[in-house]
Amino acid sequence: MTITRVAIIGLGLLGGSIGLAVKARGLDIATTGFDRDPDVRKRAGERGLVDTVCDSAAEAVANADLVILCVPVGAMGAAARELAPGLAPHAIVSDVGSSKAAVAEALAAALPGACIIPAHPVAGTEQSGPEAGFATLFAGRWCIITPPEDCDPAALAALSGFWTALGSKVELMDAAHHDLVLAVTSHIPHLIAYTIVGTASDLEDVTQSEVIKYSAGGFRDFTRIAASDPVMWRDVFLTNRGAVLEMLGRFSEDLTALQRAIRSGDGDTLFDLFTRTRAIRRQVIEQGQDDERPDFGRDH
Amino acid sequence: MTITRVAIIGLGLLGGSIGLAVKARGLDIATTGFDRDPDVRKRAGERGLVDTVCDSAAEAVANADLVILCVPVGAMGAAARELAPGLAPHAIVSDVGSSKAAVAEALAAALPGACIIPAHPVAGTEQSGPEAGFATLFAGRWCIITPPEDCDPAALAALSGFWTALGSKVELMDAAHHDLVLAVTSHIPHLIAYTIVGTASDLEDVTQSEVIKYSAGGFRDFTRIAASDPVMWRDVFLTNRGAVLEMLGRFSEDLTALQRAIRSGDGDTLFDLFTRTRAIRRQVIEQGQDDERPDFGRDH
Repeated sequence: MTITRVAIIGLGLLGGSIGLAVKARGLDIATTGFDRDPDVRKRAGERGLVDTVCDSAAEAVANADLVILCVPVGAMGAAARELAPGLAPHAIVSDVGSSKAAVAEALAAALPGACIIPAHPVAGTEQSGPEAGFATLFAGRWCIITPPEDCDPAALAALSGFWTALGSKVELMDAAHHDLVLAVTSHIPHLIAYTIVGTASDLEDVTQSEVIKYSAGGFRDFTRIAASDPVMWRDVFLTNRGAVLEMLGRFSEDLTALQRAIRSGDGDTLFDLFTRTRAIRRQVIEQGQDDERPDFGRDH
Repeated sequence: MTITRVAIIGLGLLGGSIGLAVKARGLDIATTGFDRDPDVRKRAGERGLVDTVCDSAAEAVANADLVILCVPVGAMGAAARELAPGLAPHAIVSDVGSSKAAVAEALAAALPGACIIPAHPVAGTEQSGPEAGFATLFAGRWCIITPPEDCDPAALAALSGFWTALGSKVELMDAAHHDLVLAVTSHIPHLIAYTIVGTASDLEDVTQSEVIKYSAGGFRDFTRIAASDPVMWRDVFLTNRGAVLEMLGRFSEDLTALQRAIRSGDGDTLFDLFTRTRAIRRQVIEQGQDDERPDFGRDH
């Protein structure tokens, strides 16, 4: 099947970036879009995120070959129910949510019989809203597709081709494994960042002003992550609870071991870990997953 | 007093950047340098980090008005004893270490009667070694000076003026408070980053290759911090043990509270924290302590 018309539901960072990437790459695909917030619809229209901003989800998805839900994972079910009346029988329904098992379940319940293929482009910034999107967000990044067992191969190929055309590298995975992997590479890092920024702003013996002034010592990196969209991240933790709690347990054990090493003055344990982690950074850079310039190239 | 000659002991990221900054800003100051590692001395000479690379610490500090120790905090005492024979009676002895109470004690023990004024420029990158330094490292960053109670005001003014001339903003603080503030804004963030990168690379059900591939979801930010110099950071944790353990306790309490919120499905607690932390990010940017571009401007 050929995708000639894509409907984007939710016109924030991800939805907007998909629309802009389709245009920037000159794909022969018409885009429609909808957002629940009338103000976001207006701003999306002004920025030209999609060809046509519609006033209802059902209208936006009419005749679309591919519908991509770009809303917080907790809102997927409601958004799917809202667009259902307009959905074409042949349409692929996908999404960009950061947890996948819960989304697959919510979409299946909302759209019985529809061709549902959840996906997760591992890309984003700490910004959100219709002004945050940009056309190159997905370039060189992985998009993980988690097809259900009975997935139509032609539909899967079409969705995979769509993400490849946006510059992504595509990987297939089952939803449960996706949720475990992303708990480690994304959800726990966010949870930790939110926590330390909260801890630092709540101290009595160190003022918030001091925390901000001296944040270049490492803390400022965490504030970037902790500036991510609150609703999106609340929903991620609530929908990927099992994997997040499992990985959080591992992290806490390891942190306790380091705490003990510090308390007992065991420098070798610290040195060994700090040497091992350096090698991981090298691989992240070698595999093109981060900027190789010192300090991400900032301040230069 | 006027500083016309500065000796830099330790020619890595910090020491090298001081030497390069003195030159780039055209200060009327001669620089000498020493490093215990002959290979580092050779490379420092090739890069021109200082005017004169010397073959001993005592030789490097001869006639210097200001001596800056740029070695891991655990090596401060030994480095001070090594340079002692060459130290001019009027010289100010300072450093760039990330913990201050322990350094003040080590330097006082090694150099009885010397004018010791510890300092900490809150600046750096994840890189280390003589190739890592650059002239603008300190521009716009804070330098915290922790003068002892009986500090000579003229010497303090001279040291403060030196850092200001390198582009830094100077703040005075007592050593114990410095150690508490930096435990929050730098030491705990590093410890957490080292931990999560270690945890992620040790899992059985998620491969290291997956962790690296999907690191753009947040994890890659932590790998940058966890690539910092292992010896330097081992020493920081061992010398600032009390404040680090205190702050780690606060962090762990807060993390446990979030864990409970996730387990019980308490979305409001998550949302409230995630909204508060966003405001901190805004202040970090408003106060010029970080790049305002999304994702630190990388990947664009």
